[in-house]
Amino acid sequence: MLGIFISFLLATSATAIWPKPRLVQNGTTRIVLNSNTYGFKALTSTVELEDAFRRYKSIFFPHATEPVPDPSNNGLVVDILDPTAALALGVNESYTLDVHLDGTTFIAAKTVWGALHGLETMSQLVDFNFATGQYSVSGVPVHIEDEPRFQHRGLLIDSGRHFEPVIHVKALLDSMSYAKMNVLHWHLTEDQSFPIASRVHPELAAKGAYNDFEQYTWQDIVDVVKHARLRGIRVIPEFDMPGHTSAWRKSHPEIFAEGCLTESSRGAFDPAKNETFDFLQATLKDWAEIFPDLFLHLGSDEVPSGCWNNSKDLAWMKTMGFANTSEVFNYFVNRMAAISTKLGRQTIFWDEAFLFAKPPQDAVIQNWHDASLMQKIVDAGYRAIFSSNGGYTHGWYLDGLAATWDNMYVLEPLTNISADKEKLVLGGEGCMWGEGVDPSDLEFTVWPRLAAIAERLWSDRSVNSTVEAQPRLEIFRCQLLARGVHSGVVGGNGRSPPPGPGSCTQPGKTEEQLFV
Amino acid sequence: MLGIFISFLLATSATAIWPKPRLVQNGTTRIVLNSNTYGFKALTSTVELEDAFRRYKSIFFPHATEPVPDPSNNGLVVDILDPTAALALGVNESYTLDVHLDGTTFIAAKTVWGALHGLETMSQLVDFNFATGQYSVSGVPVHIEDEPRFQHRGLLIDSGRHFEPVIHVKALLDSMSYAKMNVLHWHLTEDQSFPIASRVHPELAAKGAYNDFEQYTWQDIVDVVKHARLRGIRVIPEFDMPGHTSAWRKSHPEIFAEGCLTESSRGAFDPAKNETFDFLQATLKDWAEIFPDLFLHLGSDEVPSGCWNNSKDLAWMKTMGFANTSEVFNYFVNRMAAISTKLGRQTIFWDEAFLFAKPPQDAVIQNWHDASLMQKIVDAGYRAIFSSNGGYTHGWYLDGLAATWDNMYVLEPLTNISADKEKLVLGGEGCMWGEGVDPSDLEFTVWPRLAAIAERLWSDRSVNSTVEAQPRLEIFRCQLLARGVHSGVVGGNGRSPPPGPGSCTQPGKTEEQLFV
Repeated sequence: MLGIFISFLLATSATAIWPKPRLVQNGTTRIVLNSNTYGFKALTSTVELEDAFRRYKSIFFPHATEPVPDPSNNGLVVDILDPTAALALGVNESYTLDVHLDGTTFIAAKTVWGALHGLETMSQLVDFNFATGQYSVSGVPVHIEDEPRFQHRGLLIDSGRHFEPVIHVKALLDSMSYAKMNVLHWHLTEDQSFPIASRVHPELAAKGAYNDFEQYTWQDIVDVVKHARLRGIRVIPEFDMPGHTSAWRKSHPEIFAEGCLTESSRGAFDPAKNETFDFLQATLKDWAEIFPDLFLHLGSDEVPSGCWNNSKDLAWMKTMGFANTSEVFNYFVNRMAAISTKLGRQTIFWDEAFLFAKPPQDAVIQNWHDASLMQKIVDAGYRAIFSSNGGYTHGWYLDGLAATWDNMYVLEPLTNISADKEKLVLGGEGCMWGEGVDPSDLEFTVWPRLAAIAERLWSDRSVNSTVEAQPRLEIFRCQLLARGVHSGVVGGNGRSPPPGPGSCTQPGKTEEQLFV
Repeated sequence: MLGIFISFLLATSATAIWPKPRLVQNGTTRIVLNSNTYGFKALTSTVELEDAFRRYKSIFFPHATEPVPDPSNNGLVVDILDPTAALALGVNESYTLDVHLDGTTFIAAKTVWGALHGLETMSQLVDFNFATGQYSVSGVPVHIEDEPRFQHRGLLIDSGRHFEPVIHVKALLDSMSYAKMNVLHWHLTEDQSFPIASRVHPELAAKGAYNDFEQYTWQDIVDVVKHARLRGIRVIPEFDMPGHTSAWRKSHPEIFAEGCLTESSRGAFDPAKNETFDFLQATLKDWAEIFPDLFLHLGSDEVPSGCWNNSKDLAWMKTMGFANTSEVFNYFVNRMAAISTKLGRQTIFWDEAFLFAKPPQDAVIQNWHDASLMQKIVDAGYRAIFSSNGGYTHGWYLDGLAATWDNMYVLEPLTNISADKEKLVLGGEGCMWGEGVDPSDLEFTVWPRLAAIAERLWSDRSVNSTVEAQPRLEIFRCQLLARGVHSGVVGGNGRSPPPGPGSCTQPGKTEEQLFV
């Protein structure tokens, strides 16, 4: 059968899939799908698949159409080898997708999580013809074999600097699944606010949130984690520490270093007290019940270590034999990593923990400074996540508005990584820091640039031509819009409004350019 | 009973309602609502109310909570005098709302459309307390009597310059209902594109749309009109003509004046041919089936009347005794108004039809030039809709990004209108022209500024202090965010990103302002 497939670039949706699959083989036939009878069936039904079928039915077929006779009774069948495989780092996400000439569609996957990606790919193949009112797939028979290059494909959002109501976080998770992203890195607490409920210390949010309503209830978090899981997305919470913690200070100044206790100073936890670690362990143990993922992000960036330059901490440092604050930082990082281990978690730290401390070898280091650090991190034997800010112009920091999609697209996490260390690069993240985004402009700033990162992390390393990618990305952006996502235009800086009238694939032209 | 109410400004949600009701009387008690048992009941059930109950249940109670004992079995009862009153210009939209000390809520309205506003007001009274996990209403007993000042409270969107997928139009309708807006003025066709299906002339969209997918199917329009109606919003379609029509020319150059037939020229319909009017009548008759509203907007702005300066049209003008193109324009306007009448519709025209022609007296004139025109329009006996662009800085053009919410708020449609002519001012509209907005930034640009217009059109004329309004508007903006609307911050120009970290009520401060 495979012999009759012709693999070449067709100007159809079959070759416009984003992110680009590993292998696409196309025929030349256009087949019609009957939206009124097209069925979704799992050989072994799971809760996740049934939920996905419900979602994708309306994504495949967004327009109401008149029923038409359908002798073929076509539909989609999903077969999963291990329907119970848990969503976790490194779970098999591969799938194969076949669309046959009779309209039947077959998705085979090792796990539910791979099957979800197959459904997403299929959804991008279905076109609607306004003239005939019919749904169709071009380039049939279609045979696709696909799997991600990296295990960790994430987006960081920062709900500490601006609160993002649950409805917006869920919408963002929906949009991430369209690009096959699988990690929401949820930076939950900051100097500015503390929006997440704690059962053991409810006063943290009561006093640390911006106000009485910009908070997540316990059940809200459960709800978001479930929403994410149904879309194959792990939620990794970040509780940044020992710096970026001033909002904790509003209710618990006693665990803060005395050097920075005023409201207008950036505080740091006090590592001299066992009380501090007992407190943190109690809160993290509580939260571990709603964040089931193996990984816990404990920050460690931009520590205002000057806070430890006070008589009490200096005396304690002497007792401990610490010569400087770097040694204090190292102590803090390792003691927190031990707590994380006790809670059954592995810890992710920002790259300061690698630069200025020596965390345990099972820690994961997230690179945000210069990209060249990646090589050093893996050469030291640590696993690494790539999210270099690239000077805010050539990195994966989405708050760097001067960083364009194509700048992000060509960044390669494996640059200068030796072959034997490649396995240590888990993947990467786009980082949507919250200083200048809130629900007004969050999606607008994230998309379509996150799509560039998503393809870099999913597709083969050889898929790196911005010229080839651009028309596909423009179509993907149109699909995002049709699904309700507020994606910006392709081209220009981050968050560029359309410069003039135009279609969703074009940035637009001014009236003067359109009409003389 | 009324005697015990104390009417004064409480710092509670009961006085933060947007737009401000005509009369609010408050007690001083805070009562708890049990979200698990709170019921919604209509004394006479209607489809619209049942749908609204479903929506508002999740708006009243957005967070999942643990069931608690509820001896009071409180809930909301709606009583409607005329449940069959059709949604139309001038329908009674008044309501009264009473929240009693035992938690029962009573909404009385003349029509379903008034009752919907009562539900919206009640939704703005319900607070969630994160510490206790309880919903409550403060200032009980609450007695509110409310009705709009103007009958026509609209938003214009422009789907001709950028296509807005149905899912975005529906989201916008949802958000409009939160501000008690009741008209979507849907500018559907433009020089740039023709996105709407026509059953009699499908080639109009097939050739005039930007592409194969940025189009509305017939069923899409039906779906949007129904979605709007369920929220008390009339949909008034605009088919702008005789100018702003170049996208029609792609399939039907034969109804265009020969003076402007090239692709790069802005075209104008040819009034010299009966064929033109026959064609337009056929298309409008078709669309009349899916746009049930009494009003049809036929544009008439910015006519490139130079297109009529060609030998054929000049010869025809001679035959007709027309001295200039103004007389041609007048002929076109009146002939189209006659077609509209034949289709059972009344016509709305932009103010050029008043300035340069003499439409029939039952036409409605929409003012977009200087606000001073309003007086002239009503003095000439026409009904008027206010949407002056105010030089794009002090008007109701939302694409005028320099126009701030407070500039919009203080504009009064009845300025210089004599008392006996006030009835002729139907209301006003915020105009979100589409050159620089598409789904990426549409809501971000519309909100919160449209809220300023909404309150001007709903509340008493005396409610005009920006100082009093601002904290209420900030709370309303937070409510919009919590409901999934992408509203910009209060303050600054249109579409200003938050300048730094902060709560939803505050524009934000830079890191440097927050921490020394």
